[in-house]
Amino acid sequence: MLEGMFNPKVVAIIGATPKEGKVGNILLKNLKNFKGKVYAVNPKYEEILGFKCYPNIESIPDDVDLAVIAVPAKAVPEVLESCGRKGVKNVVVITAGFKEAGNYALERRITEICRRYGINMVGPNCLGIINTHNNLNATFSKVMPPKGNIAFLSQSGAFILAVLDWAKSNNVGFSKIVSLGNKAVLDESDFMRFLAEDDKTDVIMLYLEGVSDGKKFMDVAKEVSKVKPIVAVKSGRTEAGAKAASSHTGSLAGSFVAYRTAFRQSGVVEAESIEDLFDYTLILRRIRSISGGIAIVTNSGGPGVIAADAVEEFGLNLAKFDKKTIDRLKSILPPIANVYNPVDVLGDADAERFGKALKIVEEDPNVGAIIAILTPTAQIDFVKASEFVASVDKPIVTCFMGGETVADAINLLKKHGIVNFLDPVKAVKSLNSVKKYELMKIKLEREVESIEIDVDTDNARKIVEKYRDRRVLTDKSFDILKSYGIPVPPYGVARTAEEALEIADEIGYPVAMKIVSPDILHKTDVGCVKLNVDREKVIPTFYELVKRAEDYLKADVEGVMVQKMMPAGREVIVGMKRDPQFGALIMFGMGGIYVEVFKDVSFRIAPISKSDAYEMIKEVKSYKILKGVRGEKPSDIDSLVDVLLRISKLSLDFEEIVEMDLNPIFVYEKGCCVVDAKIVLR
Amino acid sequence: MLEGMFNPKVVAIIGATPKEGKVGNILLKNLKNFKGKVYAVNPKYEEILGFKCYPNIESIPDDVDLAVIAVPAKAVPEVLESCGRKGVKNVVVITAGFKEAGNYALERRITEICRRYGINMVGPNCLGIINTHNNLNATFSKVMPPKGNIAFLSQSGAFILAVLDWAKSNNVGFSKIVSLGNKAVLDESDFMRFLAEDDKTDVIMLYLEGVSDGKKFMDVAKEVSKVKPIVAVKSGRTEAGAKAASSHTGSLAGSFVAYRTAFRQSGVVEAESIEDLFDYTLILRRIRSISGGIAIVTNSGGPGVIAADAVEEFGLNLAKFDKKTIDRLKSILPPIANVYNPVDVLGDADAERFGKALKIVEEDPNVGAIIAILTPTAQIDFVKASEFVASVDKPIVTCFMGGETVADAINLLKKHGIVNFLDPVKAVKSLNSVKKYELMKIKLEREVESIEIDVDTDNARKIVEKYRDRRVLTDKSFDILKSYGIPVPPYGVARTAEEALEIADEIGYPVAMKIVSPDILHKTDVGCVKLNVDREKVIPTFYELVKRAEDYLKADVEGVMVQKMMPAGREVIVGMKRDPQFGALIMFGMGGIYVEVFKDVSFRIAPISKSDAYEMIKEVKSYKILKGVRGEKPSDIDSLVDVLLRISKLSLDFEEIVEMDLNPIFVYEKGCCVVDAKIVLR
Repeated sequence: MLEGMFNPKVVAIIGATPKEGKVGNILLKNLKNFKGKVYAVNPKYEEILGFKCYPNIESIPDDVDLAVIAVPAKAVPEVLESCGRKGVKNVVVITAGFKEAGNYALERRITEICRRYGINMVGPNCLGIINTHNNLNATFSKVMPPKGNIAFLSQSGAFILAVLDWAKSNNVGFSKIVSLGNKAVLDESDFMRFLAEDDKTDVIMLYLEGVSDGKKFMDVAKEVSKVKPIVAVKSGRTEAGAKAASSHTGSLAGSFVAYRTAFRQSGVVEAESIEDLFDYTLILRRIRSISGGIAIVTNSGGPGVIAADAVEEFGLNLAKFDKKTIDRLKSILPPIANVYNPVDVLGDADAERFGKALKIVEEDPNVGAIIAILTPTAQIDFVKASEFVASVDKPIVTCFMGGETVADAINLLKKHGIVNFLDPVKAVKSLNSVKKYELMKIKLEREVESIEIDVDTDNARKIVEKYRDRRVLTDKSFDILKSYGIPVPPYGVARTAEEALEIADEIGYPVAMKIVSPDILHKTDVGCVKLNVDREKVIPTFYELVKRAEDYLKADVEGVMVQKMMPAGREVIVGMKRDPQFGALIMFGMGGIYVEVFKDVSFRIAPISKSDAYEMIKEVKSYKILKGVRGEKPSDIDSLVDVLLRISKLSLDFEEIVEMDLNPIFVYEKGCCVVDAKIVLR
Repeated sequence: MLEGMFNPKVVAIIGATPKEGKVGNILLKNLKNFKGKVYAVNPKYEEILGFKCYPNIESIPDDVDLAVIAVPAKAVPEVLESCGRKGVKNVVVITAGFKEAGNYALERRITEICRRYGINMVGPNCLGIINTHNNLNATFSKVMPPKGNIAFLSQSGAFILAVLDWAKSNNVGFSKIVSLGNKAVLDESDFMRFLAEDDKTDVIMLYLEGVSDGKKFMDVAKEVSKVKPIVAVKSGRTEAGAKAASSHTGSLAGSFVAYRTAFRQSGVVEAESIEDLFDYTLILRRIRSISGGIAIVTNSGGPGVIAADAVEEFGLNLAKFDKKTIDRLKSILPPIANVYNPVDVLGDADAERFGKALKIVEEDPNVGAIIAILTPTAQIDFVKASEFVASVDKPIVTCFMGGETVADAINLLKKHGIVNFLDPVKAVKSLNSVKKYELMKIKLEREVESIEIDVDTDNARKIVEKYRDRRVLTDKSFDILKSYGIPVPPYGVARTAEEALEIADEIGYPVAMKIVSPDILHKTDVGCVKLNVDREKVIPTFYELVKRAEDYLKADVEGVMVQKMMPAGREVIVGMKRDPQFGALIMFGMGGIYVEVFKDVSFRIAPISKSDAYEMIKEVKSYKILKGVRGEKPSDIDSLVDVLLRISKLSLDFEEIVEMDLNPIFVYEKGCCVVDAKIVLR
């Protein structure tokens, strides 16, 4: 669909000008080397910079595949109309002054025109697009990066400028670059889908400030990640996510948490900084999986140990060598050399000794990837060493540590697509990003088991409809959960003290009694919950609660909920928050203090599979407690998986539910039970 | 004391040779530019490379300040003897083949010779030393770094080679460099002490594999850190520290934890990777404190947000501008520019607009440091922008993002000692290292309050002496704790069932009963503890416990401890482990599951002050629980401070105690009580 955008035969620059320094001038200059036809459009000229110039796009004799628009904002709609009439299918609107400047109506207008004519539009308010492989530089950046296999999509044009400049100086090659701008028509997902099939692109690098459509993003990313890696950095992380300070799903599930969860569920490798973005992208160009442990070969003990430390710290495995490998290493290395992992070929090693050790290590079946570390001793010939590195077939990264002395060798490695790091820790961190990608990919490729969940949607629908105008459901939330097969204690709502006694007699003693009032949300905090109530206390407790609520709290009381006191179990919490971008974000955590103090929770975006649910539970640190510490019996994890799946379904079935808090859920050796719950409607 | 080492008037190279490529040849060549007299020593020659050569050091007519020794290992003792006779006070032994190769006796011999003659020796097995300011390159590295104000001490010679090469290519200047080698005589602390007074050195960079004397290191580092920053990276982190998996002090307090704690208590800034080591060192050359919030000024929104995210994530503060600042910014920036922090001067800003904004932001009294971020737009003149940056007096770092386009400007910044980062996150991380240094320094400069602790050392001594041959003390540990004024429950040890009843009658019911046997350490795990024993159960329980221990566990039973059942309180744990390097490492944490699952513990090396003890308690995440969550009453933190101080004193008074575990301690609204304890003797 975007073929004509990146491989146009004919390009028109609308707003071209001979005036130096203007965008419409730079755009034309940047197309000097383009392997296709270029027309200028401007009613004032007949020719600009040697390009034939037409008064408008419709007067161009050829079919135009791509129009780049750099005219004042208010003129853009008319220009787009004329592109539409001409049948131009791809446009890039460089012009700013739309949504980002508060001109929402103007942006809506151009979006509407594009939709009407079926125009693929990049921007507005963007730097443009680049395809290095046909010399298409449809941006106003003067720097064209080297050809390569990285595609780069960025929501910040300024950041593209920085990357282009960096790429050129560091000889890093790109295939396609897109400045997304305001994303009025085309967004990151559209380009990701196109790039998945682009054989010039092996990895997609993404700078995001937000996504336009969370579901589309996830759907596309899931498919693309199976084919090639996507590495993304997201700015605006701390706003809500990391600052979350309380125990409610609402604040723990900040918007960044949703992004992080979405990335992970759709196979996107998240980078936490610009350098990580570069590092992960570079390594994933060539290395996609690591089958075995990490081996370290070094001529310097210290940096070798630093790398080994990092391998453990990132949770990767150091390869354990076969006896044969040890023996072979012993036969070629001096007696005081370390032949175990990390292999230290010693400071007096020449490139040959290093190369031999590398070969032996590579041939060990337990080795999945190699980190080759060299410091600039007098004995080592780095260029020769880099040739040995290049001949290794298994995944390999290097730490040739130094400056000028190692520069030539590093360039040589670059030509083979091998990434060098100054710092062993970063080498390991980057290998870890490969491992992360590999694991996500495996999960995406796995068939998702289909699950049948038996629920009474109609009944839940009735309750939701009935209390639609009430924002927070307390006692009614139990009815909804019950309809969805989620275990709740026996309960009833009493209007009178006598009714309370009747209900209590039926469900058995002791009972918990809670005020039911739309005005009182945090019942415990204001003394409107009484636990462990015996038969003789039911009636006085009823009056006490009502009096407290009405007289003291001036609340409108609907009744008193009488609930069976459940035996204490381990406390867990399940929650849901509807994220504006990604939909229902399901949360799991150990209850009470664990959530409050340690924020020990896990997230998934609904729908979740059975294995997702198990993973969510296993992911929290306090999972150990559920498994049973100090000889205690394990909790019924299957029953929690069931609750998670039902909450996932409930979230999908009812768009109007924006938040749920099942807190606490008591979990037992057998089964579990939601002891308190809250559902918030839109 | 090391003046003659770094500023010698006369240097002798012992083992000098005209043979190309030999260490004794490179050493001489490296001294070509040295501003002092150089003699060669080798009986075979009269002159080498233009330097006068003598058969031995004693025949040199001048006094020799520094001798560099590169003769075979077995010849080193004789050479050192002759240096001693000659009165040479400073030697560098390049020669390898000592301790590191298993030749401990040879190393002891040369150490003894140095001690006898009062010789300051660097090495053996090292690269040598460098003083850039008098062109003294007494190493066999061919690269001499630029002059500068960083001193570098390294336990890895190979790593020095990498740093020299990197420093030269990146134009980073050094004052002195020392390859520590085997540290047979002089160690890192000796050099740190010297460098504190060296006016050519502003910051000390340290690569450590271990320290020779933990107490000396801490004492020296504490003094040096008050004068100038020390930045250290320690290799070999994971061996024990991070892998700790159980709840015992023994395994949680791994050796790296001791290092990390020692660094922190003595003001040493810890770097976790090589790049961090460089970054922190570079920034601390010039910036030592940040008085106020961080301001961000950028021409590109995205990277600005990334920096702001990082500021929050590292726990630093974004400056909140005065209204005056906002108004001034509004007056010079376009209306859609963001005048709040981060300030976005927009992509079309030229250097002047950027410079003006910088000035306004600097003048805001709430701003303590500035991060200036620029991407390579067509409008920005980087060299001009760097001049504006250089004119800022407040601490400032830059992110001029790009490659060639920004290279000149970055060099200009370098001349002003301003550090540039490609990545905003690293800029923030580095500012955070300044904040860390500043806080540690403030603490070091604070007068430590003297505390009087009333303890009965004599009684404790008696118990320790009596049970010297027993490794683990269980019931006896209560006696020791009691002597040190640490609250324990009333208890007694019964030999007979009747005695048990007598004791129980005296202390009151219910009681806990525990077997006392040197063979049973984990009493609970093997069913040798009974809790909540009432009067009628005391006698049967006694027999049951003894039977279980003797018949079933084949243990040697000394009696049964009868202890008052303490009311349940919040559980905390206090522990001590004697680290071979740094001495008594005191641990604090919340008890039970918190320690096991979350490893939520804090450490200090004894002696600790009252404020240290408070800090230890406040540092654990679960401190919130002690303060009282969900309206619960706070625990008596003062009583825990008292326990920590007494344990610190006990650890110092008894070198023979290698480990203590007070687990759990019950803490109440008022007071606390050690419910179980274990003391391990050497």
